[in-house]
Amino acid sequence: MPNDRRDRRPALRLKAVEIDTYRENVAYLHRNCSLYRAEGFQALSKVELRHDGRRILAVLNVVDDASIVGPGEIGLAEQAFAQFGQPEGTAVEVEHATPPVSMEAVRRKMGGDRLDFGDFLAIARDIRDYRYSKVEIAAFLVAVGQVGLDRDETLHLTRAMLETGDRIDWDEPLVADKHCIGGIPGNRTSMLVVPIVAAHGMLIPKTSSRAITSPAGTADSMEVLARVTLTPEELHEIVRHHRGCLAWGGTARLAPVDDILISVERPLALDAPEQMVASILSKKLAAGSTHLLLDIPVGPTAKVRTLDQALRLRKRFEYVGDRLGLHLEAVLTDGRQPIGRGIGPVLEARDVMQVLEQDPNAPADLRQKALHLAGRIIEFDPDVRGGQGYSIARDILESGRALAKMNAIIDAQGRNPEPHSPGHLSFEVTAERAGYVAAIDNYHLARIARLAGAPLSKGAGVDLLRKVGDRVEAGEPLYRVHAEVPAEYRFAREYTHRHNGYTLSEAPVEPFIPMDF
Amino acid sequence: MPNDRRDRRPALRLKAVEIDTYRENVAYLHRNCSLYRAEGFQALSKVELRHDGRRILAVLNVVDDASIVGPGEIGLAEQAFAQFGQPEGTAVEVEHATPPVSMEAVRRKMGGDRLDFGDFLAIARDIRDYRYSKVEIAAFLVAVGQVGLDRDETLHLTRAMLETGDRIDWDEPLVADKHCIGGIPGNRTSMLVVPIVAAHGMLIPKTSSRAITSPAGTADSMEVLARVTLTPEELHEIVRHHRGCLAWGGTARLAPVDDILISVERPLALDAPEQMVASILSKKLAAGSTHLLLDIPVGPTAKVRTLDQALRLRKRFEYVGDRLGLHLEAVLTDGRQPIGRGIGPVLEARDVMQVLEQDPNAPADLRQKALHLAGRIIEFDPDVRGGQGYSIARDILESGRALAKMNAIIDAQGRNPEPHSPGHLSFEVTAERAGYVAAIDNYHLARIARLAGAPLSKGAGVDLLRKVGDRVEAGEPLYRVHAEVPAEYRFAREYTHRHNGYTLSEAPVEPFIPMDF
Repeated sequence: MPNDRRDRRPALRLKAVEIDTYRENVAYLHRNCSLYRAEGFQALSKVELRHDGRRILAVLNVVDDASIVGPGEIGLAEQAFAQFGQPEGTAVEVEHATPPVSMEAVRRKMGGDRLDFGDFLAIARDIRDYRYSKVEIAAFLVAVGQVGLDRDETLHLTRAMLETGDRIDWDEPLVADKHCIGGIPGNRTSMLVVPIVAAHGMLIPKTSSRAITSPAGTADSMEVLARVTLTPEELHEIVRHHRGCLAWGGTARLAPVDDILISVERPLALDAPEQMVASILSKKLAAGSTHLLLDIPVGPTAKVRTLDQALRLRKRFEYVGDRLGLHLEAVLTDGRQPIGRGIGPVLEARDVMQVLEQDPNAPADLRQKALHLAGRIIEFDPDVRGGQGYSIARDILESGRALAKMNAIIDAQGRNPEPHSPGHLSFEVTAERAGYVAAIDNYHLARIARLAGAPLSKGAGVDLLRKVGDRVEAGEPLYRVHAEVPAEYRFAREYTHRHNGYTLSEAPVEPFIPMDF
Repeated sequence: MPNDRRDRRPALRLKAVEIDTYRENVAYLHRNCSLYRAEGFQALSKVELRHDGRRILAVLNVVDDASIVGPGEIGLAEQAFAQFGQPEGTAVEVEHATPPVSMEAVRRKMGGDRLDFGDFLAIARDIRDYRYSKVEIAAFLVAVGQVGLDRDETLHLTRAMLETGDRIDWDEPLVADKHCIGGIPGNRTSMLVVPIVAAHGMLIPKTSSRAITSPAGTADSMEVLARVTLTPEELHEIVRHHRGCLAWGGTARLAPVDDILISVERPLALDAPEQMVASILSKKLAAGSTHLLLDIPVGPTAKVRTLDQALRLRKRFEYVGDRLGLHLEAVLTDGRQPIGRGIGPVLEARDVMQVLEQDPNAPADLRQKALHLAGRIIEFDPDVRGGQGYSIARDILESGRALAKMNAIIDAQGRNPEPHSPGHLSFEVTAERAGYVAAIDNYHLARIARLAGAPLSKGAGVDLLRKVGDRVEAGEPLYRVHAEVPAEYRFAREYTHRHNGYTLSEAPVEPFIPMDF
């Protein structure tokens, strides 16, 4: 059909439109373009562009400003232009697009069907090639969220996301990684686990995210100390030399379908557990990990609220990990409160350095949790006897080798020459009555730290002065809030007036449990 | 909070960007804008703009071409700019947007909950005000499609869509309308019902759609004869004078939420029955109709396939219509084949004029169905005795008063001075064997007419020479295809080679049943 239609459809001249439409292909057509008028394109809103055997789908925007695109031109936004790969001025045929073929599988999922690997692979390929509009992706995600995926479907989706992207090969038998499913402020164990494990000699090329809805991601906290935006070449060089790194993971093209799905999940606040399993495991496998330790915090204000939920999630991770050749161990950890003292980039980096420097004021819970996690990773080493990991990790920390390794990594990535300090505006929140701290609301404390300016104001955040199990008298401080900007100081202050986020108990409460919660 | 934040967030200068983003608010920010870099806007992708108490939500696109927007500017696409209502150059504050509050109700629906009227009203208001991205609308529609709406929820949604738009008041006690739920090619009964009912003296201000996926809508066929794009003033003037019109309904702002929902439903090919009920009834009530006759064709290739399905749909329409004060009657009609002979704008207009002109070759099924529908509408008149409508309608047709009324409406809307004729390229499709026509596939014949060029090539389409119940011998023609362009002639021809769309039976078949199928 394509060639035959030329006798009636005029070709349009291709133009690059320098708009970044964030993982959606968008095409621009002038309202006075004869093709637009004839085809009634507006209603269907998705078009197919063709030239010389290349095809691309795009969502249509109509333009009234001829300096963006003129009549006779077809504009493509940056991603779409790059994907189409044709120079400006190319004669392009434009037609109504039919939906990607794999939408038929999405419709079957909407109807409650089970999908097979072929279905998921077709969906993932079409999503990777930007053949889905965001609306179609939302339909897929909501259908999956409502109908659910069984464990084999979760495996199929994970494998499909893995196979539609690049995959790093470190050419080593053991590539370790750790991941926390999130939701716990201050939980900066990676910045301790990486130097300890790397000092043991195990390869641990850790990449992390920046905060999106939290007060700090590992990349934000690490950035207080060192540069985190590394080229793939720099990252490889540092990892080969030092056995580990603490870099921002945002630049790689690993499991690109996951990034596209997340860009739609996030505004919808969707977080189906099956989707989480597929997202995390596809990314880790694509990054070349062979061994993964997964931290699943459990608590009333954590992402996973009950032990039962955590155990089901662990089984799902194990099922998929085992079948994809990933040695995976998932540990349930105490999620009744934030970890460490600081919440916010500078305060968290301070906690980490205190633990590494063996400062007597270092937060004990962060130290204990990091040693337990590092110990479990060290036990991935076939030469380490089961149960010996913790003491090896502790030796590495106490001998100063972990600190030396961290300094080597910081210098290799590029040490930040100007040390940040906590925000100079601060106030304390005190207990209204006496009692034992029973729980500290993770969401609430994260919100206070965000309002105080974290992560953009690096020194902003919360410093916890009492933790779960501690005794507190009326009027004693529970935590201190730091801000850099007067307005943010006021927002945080007003918010703490409503509720301080602490639950106190009359009876003594069991303190933090570092592992096997 | 709003005012306080000024001490740290720089304002941006507002700029109009002449891009029509089709019912979604889009904002444009330059990549080098300090605000963009600081806020990490990309990830969240939805922003709130504020000035002087006005707020607007928009999805963000990042721009690299300073001639579209420069650093320091915030661009708004046409709809968003009009909605914000501020002049270019206005100092605007821009922040991460929180999702519209009513998304919480959407999330409850995703979880399987029943929603109340307040929920639907909040959702409809936020959608009308473009506070939902298309992704959020898709989530709502897919959730509704999967969980379903009970009859009270359907009522709530209909009322919410009605209350969030304009409503026409004709200031008459009886405003009649008819509507067909679609799926039957050639079904141009409105072009007969309107002149008959208007000649009886009843007010019937009919607006119709253009074809989107079908070979012709009523507006496309009427356009062969007269202008159909009328201003609201013209439409009112014609209706007052002639008691009826046959206009395109695309310009009104009636039930705007319905238009926005449809713009997302269509690319997803969603068509939940509850959504159909809410869509049709909110539009009709907004248009000021007091009495509605609903045509529900039933057949194996119609939209509604079984009698059971049709009866359930009818009950749902009746339930909602009754509670919103609409006198509604729904009739089930014979949907085993297209109606009339022609499929395509010119061929359908020809059928209509043959019936009006009492041409002996006029298609009997179209004539019968139109008289039955018109008769039922005429019986809405309290002065007409039950059962007398059909003979009144027939008298109006046979006396020539329907033709005179149609000509008056055509002249009032603006008669097309150049009569179209059927496409000059044509071929016939013949029966491979003898038999009785048992069914004619509606989808298949519509597809052939579309491939032949309808509705853009007005003379293109299909002319049916045999209908259900007819006897046909091997080699006798079943239908004739018309095209205006050689390529389209070939596409249609190739397609008919695969399958001609006719089902033949050995035994005699009951012919078309005009009503109460």
